[in-house]
Amino acid sequence: MDTPAPDLGPAAKAAVLSDALHYMRRYAGRTVVVKYGGHAMGGSDTFARDVVQLQQVGIDPIVVHGGGPQIGRMLKRLGIESRFVDGLRVTDAATMEVVEMVLAGTINKQLVAAINAEGGCAIGVTGKDGRLIEAQKVVRKPDLGFVGEPKTVNAALLDGFKKSAMIPVIAPIGVGALGETYNINADTVAGAVAAAIKAARLLLLTDVAGVLDDNKKLVPEIDAAEARRMIAAGTISGGMIPKVETCLEAVDGGVEAAVIVDGRVRHAILLELFTEGAGTLIRAG
Amino acid sequence: MDTPAPDLGPAAKAAVLSDALHYMRRYAGRTVVVKYGGHAMGGSDTFARDVVQLQQVGIDPIVVHGGGPQIGRMLKRLGIESRFVDGLRVTDAATMEVVEMVLAGTINKQLVAAINAEGGCAIGVTGKDGRLIEAQKVVRKPDLGFVGEPKTVNAALLDGFKKSAMIPVIAPIGVGALGETYNINADTVAGAVAAAIKAARLLLLTDVAGVLDDNKKLVPEIDAAEARRMIAAGTISGGMIPKVETCLEAVDGGVEAAVIVDGRVRHAILLELFTEGAGTLIRAG
Amino acid sequence: MDTPAPDLGPAAKAAVLSDALHYMRRYAGRTVVVKYGGHAMGGSDTFARDVVQLQQVGIDPIVVHGGGPQIGRMLKRLGIESRFVDGLRVTDAATMEVVEMVLAGTINKQLVAAINAEGGCAIGVTGKDGRLIEAQKVVRKPDLGFVGEPKTVNAALLDGFKKSAMIPVIAPIGVGALGETYNINADTVAGAVAAAIKAARLLLLTDVAGVLDDNKKLVPEIDAAEARRMIAAGTISGGMIPKVETCLEAVDGGVEAAVIVDGRVRHAILLELFTEGAGTLIRAG
Amino acid sequence: MDTPAPDLGPAAKAAVLSDALHYMRRYAGRTVVVKYGGHAMGGSDTFARDVVQLQQVGIDPIVVHGGGPQIGRMLKRLGIESRFVDGLRVTDAATMEVVEMVLAGTINKQLVAAINAEGGCAIGVTGKDGRLIEAQKVVRKPDLGFVGEPKTVNAALLDGFKKSAMIPVIAPIGVGALGETYNINADTVAGAVAAAIKAARLLLLTDVAGVLDDNKKLVPEIDAAEARRMIAAGTISGGMIPKVETCLEAVDGGVEAAVIVDGRVRHAILLELFTEGAGTLIRAG
Amino acid sequence: MDTPAPDLGPAAKAAVLSDALHYMRRYAGRTVVVKYGGHAMGGSDTFARDVVQLQQVGIDPIVVHGGGPQIGRMLKRLGIESRFVDGLRVTDAATMEVVEMVLAGTINKQLVAAINAEGGCAIGVTGKDGRLIEAQKVVRKPDLGFVGEPKTVNAALLDGFKKSAMIPVIAPIGVGALGETYNINADTVAGAVAAAIKAARLLLLTDVAGVLDDNKKLVPEIDAAEARRMIAAGTISGGMIPKVETCLEAVDGGVEAAVIVDGRVRHAILLELFTEGAGTLIRAG
Amino acid sequence: MDTPAPDLGPAAKAAVLSDALHYMRRYAGRTVVVKYGGHAMGGSDTFARDVVQLQQVGIDPIVVHGGGPQIGRMLKRLGIESRFVDGLRVTDAATMEVVEMVLAGTINKQLVAAINAEGGCAIGVTGKDGRLIEAQKVVRKPDLGFVGEPKTVNAALLDGFKKSAMIPVIAPIGVGALGETYNINADTVAGAVAAAIKAARLLLLTDVAGVLDDNKKLVPEIDAAEARRMIAAGTISGGMIPKVETCLEAVDGGVEAAVIVDGRVRHAILLELFTEGAGTLIRAG
Repeated sequence: MDTPAPDLGPAAKAAVLSDALHYMRRYAGRTVVVKYGGHAMGGSDTFARDVVQLQQVGIDPIVVHGGGPQIGRMLKRLGIESRFVDGLRVTDAATMEVVEMVLAGTINKQLVAAINAEGGCAIGVTGKDGRLIEAQKVVRKPDLGFVGEPKTVNAALLDGFKKSAMIPVIAPIGVGALGETYNINADTVAGAVAAAIKAARLLLLTDVAGVLDDNKKLVPEIDAAEARRMIAAGTISGGMIPKVETCLEAVDGGVEAAVIVDGRVRHAILLELFTEGAGTLIRAG
Repeated sequence: MDTPAPDLGPAAKAAVLSDALHYMRRYAGRTVVVKYGGHAMGGSDTFARDVVQLQQVGIDPIVVHGGGPQIGRMLKRLGIESRFVDGLRVTDAATMEVVEMVLAGTINKQLVAAINAEGGCAIGVTGKDGRLIEAQKVVRKPDLGFVGEPKTVNAALLDGFKKSAMIPVIAPIGVGALGETYNINADTVAGAVAAAIKAARLLLLTDVAGVLDDNKKLVPEIDAAEARRMIAAGTISGGMIPKVETCLEAVDGGVEAAVIVDGRVRHAILLELFTEGAGTLIRAG
Repeated sequence: MDTPAPDLGPAAKAAVLSDALHYMRRYAGRTVVVKYGGHAMGGSDTFARDVVQLQQVGIDPIVVHGGGPQIGRMLKRLGIESRFVDGLRVTDAATMEVVEMVLAGTINKQLVAAINAEGGCAIGVTGKDGRLIEAQKVVRKPDLGFVGEPKTVNAALLDGFKKSAMIPVIAPIGVGALGETYNINADTVAGAVAAAIKAARLLLLTDVAGVLDDNKKLVPEIDAAEARRMIAAGTISGGMIPKVETCLEAVDGGVEAAVIVDGRVRHAILLELFTEGAGTLIRAG
Repeated sequence: MDTPAPDLGPAAKAAVLSDALHYMRRYAGRTVVVKYGGHAMGGSDTFARDVVQLQQVGIDPIVVHGGGPQIGRMLKRLGIESRFVDGLRVTDAATMEVVEMVLAGTINKQLVAAINAEGGCAIGVTGKDGRLIEAQKVVRKPDLGFVGEPKTVNAALLDGFKKSAMIPVIAPIGVGALGETYNINADTVAGAVAAAIKAARLLLLTDVAGVLDDNKKLVPEIDAAEARRMIAAGTISGGMIPKVETCLEAVDGGVEAAVIVDGRVRHAILLELFTEGAGTLIRAG
Repeated sequence: MDTPAPDLGPAAKAAVLSDALHYMRRYAGRTVVVKYGGHAMGGSDTFARDVVQLQQVGIDPIVVHGGGPQIGRMLKRLGIESRFVDGLRVTDAATMEVVEMVLAGTINKQLVAAINAEGGCAIGVTGKDGRLIEAQKVVRKPDLGFVGEPKTVNAALLDGFKKSAMIPVIAPIGVGALGETYNINADTVAGAVAAAIKAARLLLLTDVAGVLDDNKKLVPEIDAAEARRMIAAGTISGGMIPKVETCLEAVDGGVEAAVIVDGRVRHAILLELFTEGAGTLIRAG
Repeated sequence: MDTPAPDLGPAAKAAVLSDALHYMRRYAGRTVVVKYGGHAMGGSDTFARDVVQLQQVGIDPIVVHGGGPQIGRMLKRLGIESRFVDGLRVTDAATMEVVEMVLAGTINKQLVAAINAEGGCAIGVTGKDGRLIEAQKVVRKPDLGFVGEPKTVNAALLDGFKKSAMIPVIAPIGVGALGETYNINADTVAGAVAAAIKAARLLLLTDVAGVLDDNKKLVPEIDAAEARRMIAAGTISGGMIPKVETCLEAVDGGVEAAVIVDGRVRHAILLELFTEGAGTLIRAG
């Protein structure tokens, strides 16, 4: 376990503990969906341990992961050219095969192994397993190929994992009505999963601090209406827009709150859930 | 909830949290018996809240209380003379009636009300309720009257409370084979209860820091053999001897560990259970 | 067990038995609330055994007790003056402390011990335990101090006791919204408890035969409308009025029937429940 | 329900009730096997109601019936000659067919209908249903044809009926290893069923008072050794011998006690079980 | 087990198997009611084994049987004259006694024994057992005596048998409101039972191939409207009319489909359920 | 569903059905492990449907797959050279990464999707998920790199899948004590899984008919001793030796029987389980 900071007196520790117990009670028996991002992944972080500890205090975690950089590297090795439209990868059949292979066969299993090494019981799945995510093609011009979006999430399957105390680790791949394979944005999958099970929290781990206001100060909490205003006003811009929109869809879909969290901070998940919070929390409203 | 110390950074909090989760897992689903002492009681302390929070994270608390000072005051008001032999109150029938009345009718209900005000579901009992504690007379010269010691503890009853998520608050009174009422030392009752249910921990909340070594420094942890040596050597002396002996009987009886904790510290129970510890822990050995 | 009357032939016994089984079936699995009065209490009566036998044939008893005389004696010993308004004890803080101490610490535990000596598993509680009875102040002129009336009864708690086959023995004390303690009339508590759980029967054990008609003959059964007429006509008068009103509130609140029974008769509870009845039964109507 | 004897005072009734509750507790959740004899059957008796009332207070009844007289009448109508050896009917194939038809098709269904008319849920069966009684031929000279004795009783089947609150009514017919049908003595079947399920009581309802001593006085209770002495001494003789032997086999087989009861007395079953007894009780010893 | 036809190649077998599994899935956990007719009964047929095998693959069978010829023979032996009106037996009290005796005491037990010899756990019942079939008199001129029709079927009882994995074998006898016994047509009982439990299938085993069209060719499947047209047109005539009407009532009552099957074919039940069908299936429509 | 062979008469079908039901009963509620081989895979076969149908009749399938040819192709595309020693692929770190990616990310998901398209609920896993297969290095000269063998199989995990009616589809990859990834022979994994759960059957689907005797005739069944004699005598030789040895280890480990089946035959699994068999069955002995 971590070495506690040596200079913390009992009074300070006691205050942290008492608050943490208060928050834990709120989440007991509920589910938290965590998107573990491509960029936030890797190295010596505390992500896997945090996930296992959540479960140990009675909160059920579900993990969704991305994998952009690794996919790009494998495509390159295989001599398959990558093309992007508005930040979305154009996914032809040959690309799709590689995307699935890398996400389901490499990254998913690394994450599963890391969580299990901490004492968890993670099961890695894609949207094909148990038809977890039925998807449909994203229709737009120019055509993106096998890029999809979730149509239905099999909540009963997730409930089966929960009953057996298994931690689902989900690669963002969906299956179409005719059996075709779709590449889906990982944030979108995390949001759809969270909405399908009315999760207590959706946590999007990223590599920024959260939503910033016009003075570049972190905004700790906003409601949906305010978030929409900030997008309209341009305060929220660039890559933050789709993240916030995923959060808005989740809270519209019944998730209690969605949080954009800085995944680079050690124990980011614990800090968000068991203290007065970290990052930017978005509520319905 | 407590105001967290304002100057604690996220890294420090995160370290405390991660450690606490590690400890919580160890106690999940298990029972902790807490003796809440006459002298440690009262005022604005955090005892009741701590007890409720234990239960909220899946640990089942059982509380045993004393009541020396209040008994003395009521005896005085009623003009009944108190006599002590070796620190034990000589308890004739008239005294016994007052002891029971004050413990079961006044102190027990105060503690119950305090715990319930924090959101718990405490049920105050004595050894008569459900024949929880069958007792026998302590036989010694000079005779002490209705001073008893536990013979059997009705563990099934405590299990019934646990199943209904009720927190038992026990006044240290036993019932004899012929229905007679006995006054029992509260530490002894706590130890017997802890042994009967093979508790994970017995916490004796007192008004000292714990066991001190020859240099008056707090001893964080000792095994039973070492504790016996320290008594023989006189390092442990005076009122600390019966406390340590209660701990030794508990660990001999199957309790995982017994701890003498300073009840004057805020959130003493949380600090003991969810950090590297407080007070002096005594293990079998 | 009782010595059966030696001159009863098999035919007479058989008739009693067959009828009794018929009645038992009606109450199987249901709950009967018994108010055991201050005056009816004590001595060599069969109350405790009857309560245990009810449970043994599948009927769940709940006992509510009073304690007027004993409270008066203790107040006198402590030099606290008793004042009554319309038969209600004016209860200042000092008096309240004594009332609680005697009811919860002395009488309640005597009754618990008596029931357990017959093989039951009684648990003595007040309205504070598990917040069983939340109370509010009785507002009237002149002010009565801490005299209260039940506002809510925690039926889930009573259900928890039932599931663990524990017999609740309730002292008539309530807890206010701010944690203050209230002295409540025991009949009133019994009625409120019976209504909260829709009991099959509320039995008020008293020291009279029941309701008498104008010719001083016992009335075996009346409906609510008739009872109200008898109060208006003055046939029911004096101390019988509040008892009948408690019965009326209980049947209005969903209790199947309430009965004023002569607690001085041996096995009064069994006679009331398992023969064509004893005392005066009051039904809705 | 029965009209209670009008001259019974409350004290007498109360004594009967208190005793009855005491006995009921002893049998709660247990099974009582009742042999309802050919001669004791019929008319306006209270047998069916008693059986239903047993179940209503938590005792599980199993009924075994005979049918000698009715079988004889049908054989006569069909012109089939009856032959007896030592009181046992010689049973050829044609006779067996009639025995089964009358027992299973007529008497069994009459008894089932009578019990159900009192509110029970009786299911009439023979040893063929669910292979309840596997039988073997009684081998003796002269040959008795299809006269059998129980080899195994399917206790799991009876347990299935108990779980569905069905009252089994058993016609004394067994099935052989090759599917052949056997005529078995009803007392013998009752004894074997009682032993197979370790019944609390086996009641043989007959048309005599019970076992008489040398002075023709009823013997209320004997142990097995004494019963064997009384047979050897000739005090027990004639048709009482096989009845007592059935009782001895039952108590040897694990039945708590077997009782020969006078079935002509109204509510004989209730009197035997819920008072100090009727008839002659035989215990192991 | 049957000797498989030696000349079937693996491909043919595999096709039969795959289809059968497909059909089995449709019936898994559901109930099939089979009327086993008087004329279809007896000899070396495969009926009992088929019934047991249904249960072994998770389908719950209920059997209803008739018994016309055997009843006629016994009436003749007893010198009771048989009278018929429109094919219905006029049933006076003496006749009713014989009908019940033969159906419940002889035929029912033969069928039970046959099923149990194949490893089943059959329980033979009539409408009296557990008040399975409450009946009312069929009122018509001339009067038919104790000829009845089902008024209510005790579906809860059948559910109790199902939970204990018992196979009910039902003799077509009903009980009236006053306890009187009624003779009911076995097809009618089967239809009423199937409707009461919303069976997946009602199979009427007969000694004809099924419904024939105007060219005397077997009609494999019709809906209710078409069946009614064929009756009106005279294509369905004679003894086939009541059979088809029983089927129509069953499907109107909620049975998925009713089938008239040729019971003379070996394994007729298996062929009907687990291949593309046999006989004539009638659906709602 | 398959078109049934048109020339099969009802008698032939009935015989196949009756036999099949007999076999189904033997396997009800039990587990069958099927190794679906690299060469047997693909095309329009009936494998996925057979697996789903097994589950639908109450048998729990577990699938283990290989993937030799596809791995070879991907290695070639990536320019990684394949080296074999005694038919075993030398697996360095770069190769291991590709093996895992292809097995877990491509083939596993194809098989999962095929089973789910037939209505099943397949979950694809490797030995890393839930630490299903803990492995150790195969130590031999020359060194094979990351080639492993199963050390422990997590049977509790498989039980969890079974309870949720999920069909595990296992890629033959193990995880070492230090988290390293191992490539394991798929037959070996299937055998170890079957032994860990005491499967009813291990089916190795191959592209040969089974074990042939000296006259090249298929041997339908042998015991373990005979199998060992045939290996020693050279009758079993070449690639058949490791297959038979896997079978022998499985039956030694508690599997009821292991069968080498020709996976090229349509519905091979159904034929093996539900007829008198196909391929070569090996029993303990």
